[in-house]
Amino acid sequence: MFITFEGLDFCGKSTQVKLLTSYLEAEGNGVEVIREPGGTSISEKVRNVLLDRANEKMFMETELLLYSASRAQLVRERIIPLLKKDYYVISDRFHDSSIAYQGYGRGIDISRVKEIQLFAIGEAVPDLTFLIDIPVKEVNKRKAKFEPGTWDRIEVSGDQFYERVRQGYFEIATNSNHYKILDGLNSIEHIHQEIVEVINNFSI
Amino acid sequence: MFITFEGLDFCGKSTQVKLLTSYLEAEGNGVEVIREPGGTSISEKVRNVLLDRANEKMFMETELLLYSASRAQLVRERIIPLLKKDYYVISDRFHDSSIAYQGYGRGIDISRVKEIQLFAIGEAVPDLTFLIDIPVKEVNKRKAKFEPGTWDRIEVSGDQFYERVRQGYFEIATNSNHYKILDGLNSIEHIHQEIVEVINNFSI
Repeated sequence: MFITFEGLDFCGKSTQVKLLTSYLEAEGNGVEVIREPGGTSISEKVRNVLLDRANEKMFMETELLLYSASRAQLVRERIIPLLKKDYYVISDRFHDSSIAYQGYGRGIDISRVKEIQLFAIGEAVPDLTFLIDIPVKEVNKRKAKFEPGTWDRIEVSGDQFYERVRQGYFEIATNSNHYKILDGLNSIEHIHQEIVEVINNFSI
Repeated sequence: MFITFEGLDFCGKSTQVKLLTSYLEAEGNGVEVIREPGGTSISEKVRNVLLDRANEKMFMETELLLYSASRAQLVRERIIPLLKKDYYVISDRFHDSSIAYQGYGRGIDISRVKEIQLFAIGEAVPDLTFLIDIPVKEVNKRKAKFEPGTWDRIEVSGDQFYERVRQGYFEIATNSNHYKILDGLNSIEHIHQEIVEVINNFSI
């Protein structure tokens, strides 16, 4: 089963990925967590180019193609082989991040972004996606706990960008039959229980 | 004017690029030479990932997207601004390399490769492309002069791959109105004169 987590930066995805992983492992399942962008030796090299703030002159088309390249490698080198071995594969971000961030956020033609994503992911279509939703002002509140010098090239983007990304996620979720939207303002434990319930119902 | 050179590895493109550059500069023109993949700080980082033989597990989809990312950056950061300043821009390989190598050579669906290329290059469509054609056995003859340890990740590909790429180039050239095919077995000076003649007729 292939599960992906989506949402704005600082929405709590990574925490929920960890909790879900522990839960599924305790139930005796093989679980692999994937980090996007990254997750293979080649993808990590691409990740370094993407997130390095020295690369501030990066155009949005370049950004989209680099995310897609990293993802194409990750899918074929790790995700597909793991799914064939009946692992749960959990990815912290996947192709809908590109549609939300580079399409809705940066303004690249949505149908073009989707076309390139379908090429990149091939047969690795998620079975279930959790969108952890938080308002943009909550992103800023959580971001403020970190020094600006530690934000990566994407995280320095402004409020209007994040608003467009959030609306994009809502549209993607509305047009999909494998999305579950969770309120990221709830407690960590509350969100975790919701996720476990969805997974258990899905398995039946 | 945007001029690109295409052809199999070791066909003599780089030599002709240098000779044409000297010729155009001597005529008093502004000329910039572009290296593909590469040519910008970001594109050079991507180039290192693409050509590093340690990355032997790279899938063809990843390869295509990385070439396209490098090109998308090069177009927007350098080629378009230079063309707007009336420079001659000469590129040693461009988008048709992806169509020939990743499409015809590696076997990725040609229409998909073209779609991604059009996205990557945007408005930077070449005015003139020189295809320097040599048979595959000539590639091998010229390649043999170098130590195998110095060949990059693409150059270690076999004969059948190069045959498909060569046929791909012929098809691209046949369906284009800005291609000039040159016989790469002719002398360097002969080929250079042919190129100069085409350029001068084009300018009229």
